[in-house]
Amino acid sequence: MAVEAQAGKTDTRARLVEAARGLFLKQGYAATGIAQILKEADARSGSLYYFFPTKEDLLLAVLEQYKELLWPLVIQPVFDRVSDPMERIFGVLDGYRRMLLMTECAQGCPIGNLALEVAESHPAARTLIAENFDGWKQAIEQCLDDLDGRLPADVDRKSLASFVLTVMEGGIMQARAYRDSAPFEQGVAQLRDYFDRILDDGSNWSKG
Amino acid sequence: MAVEAQAGKTDTRARLVEAARGLFLKQGYAATGIAQILKEADARSGSLYYFFPTKEDLLLAVLEQYKELLWPLVIQPVFDRVSDPMERIFGVLDGYRRMLLMTECAQGCPIGNLALEVAESHPAARTLIAENFDGWKQAIEQCLDDLDGRLPADVDRKSLASFVLTVMEGGIMQARAYRDSAPFEQGVAQLRDYFDRILDDGSNWSKG
Repeated sequence: MAVEAQAGKTDTRARLVEAARGLFLKQGYAATGIAQILKEADARSGSLYYFFPTKEDLLLAVLEQYKELLWPLVIQPVFDRVSDPMERIFGVLDGYRRMLLMTECAQGCPIGNLALEVAESHPAARTLIAENFDGWKQAIEQCLDDLDGRLPADVDRKSLASFVLTVMEGGIMQARAYRDSAPFEQGVAQLRDYFDRILDDGSNWSKG
Repeated sequence: MAVEAQAGKTDTRARLVEAARGLFLKQGYAATGIAQILKEADARSGSLYYFFPTKEDLLLAVLEQYKELLWPLVIQPVFDRVSDPMERIFGVLDGYRRMLLMTECAQGCPIGNLALEVAESHPAARTLIAENFDGWKQAIEQCLDDLDGRLPADVDRKSLASFVLTVMEGGIMQARAYRDSAPFEQGVAQLRDYFDRILDDGSNWSKG
């Protein structure tokens, strides 16, 4: 019985986080009301306040969950399917393109949305947003490290990984503004052109 | 008297738009209440509903104003100061860097914020957001056209101008998430490196 009650609690908490995650992604943090979260999660307000005394606590739980799901949901499936480090980077980016196509560009990057909406008003959330970005960039940096020998020695890998995130987020923003995946796809094509030019230099450099 | 009444009306409308503009920029669209706009504009609710029957009408007016102010406030001052087309592009980007520094990265691009917050829920606003982006990219494209002879003939200028906007917006997002202008500056440095590589090709190409 105690075990069942515990399982029920865990289940309610998970439903609340999942409902909030979906609503924040679809309509934003400020536009999402507590009543809507309760309805979507099929939960009572007592449960909500038990697990999450404030709406911000729920936001933090959502951001913690994104951190936990980054590797299993976003990175690892690409790394399992693709072995070339350069293609792994573009495989991760392609995941976002497919998400744009599936949602007709209605849905963007959940972390990017929250970065612009709550970074200023919710400092604890801002820290978790930055940690989500850190994790994403570490995955890209790992690919750059694995390119070893093809990248010129003077390339700053941290800066280049950050640039990949910049292009991803800026491209998604334009795709959403135009409701068209083309600006995202063009951005990724420009990034690939940039990588080709850098790698060309790398091969010249290692021959030199 | 009729003229004074007209001037008063124009003045009230302008104060409402300015108050809404500032509040949407600081805290977002959904988080901004009508009462707060009235207080900031020092206006009565009757005036607000006279000029703007809905909050969305006010949002559209704000976005129209951004469109009108793009050239006089963002582009022309840089073009007046800088004549080299390539440096004009980086001069526009530098304006955003200075804005980030001045606000300690609290304030981003108003159009980018709204793109992620309201594009899905407010189709008329989305159209105006896209038009703001169009205007910005046209200014960059004009610089690329003015680079004529230095750019290889096969460079797609529309796509490259779109990439500059992507890098600007993605860089600002990271600067806000980290409350640090460094990711923005690194992104711009990577973009400059990319331009240098493209222009190098251009000079080889015209020599070839």
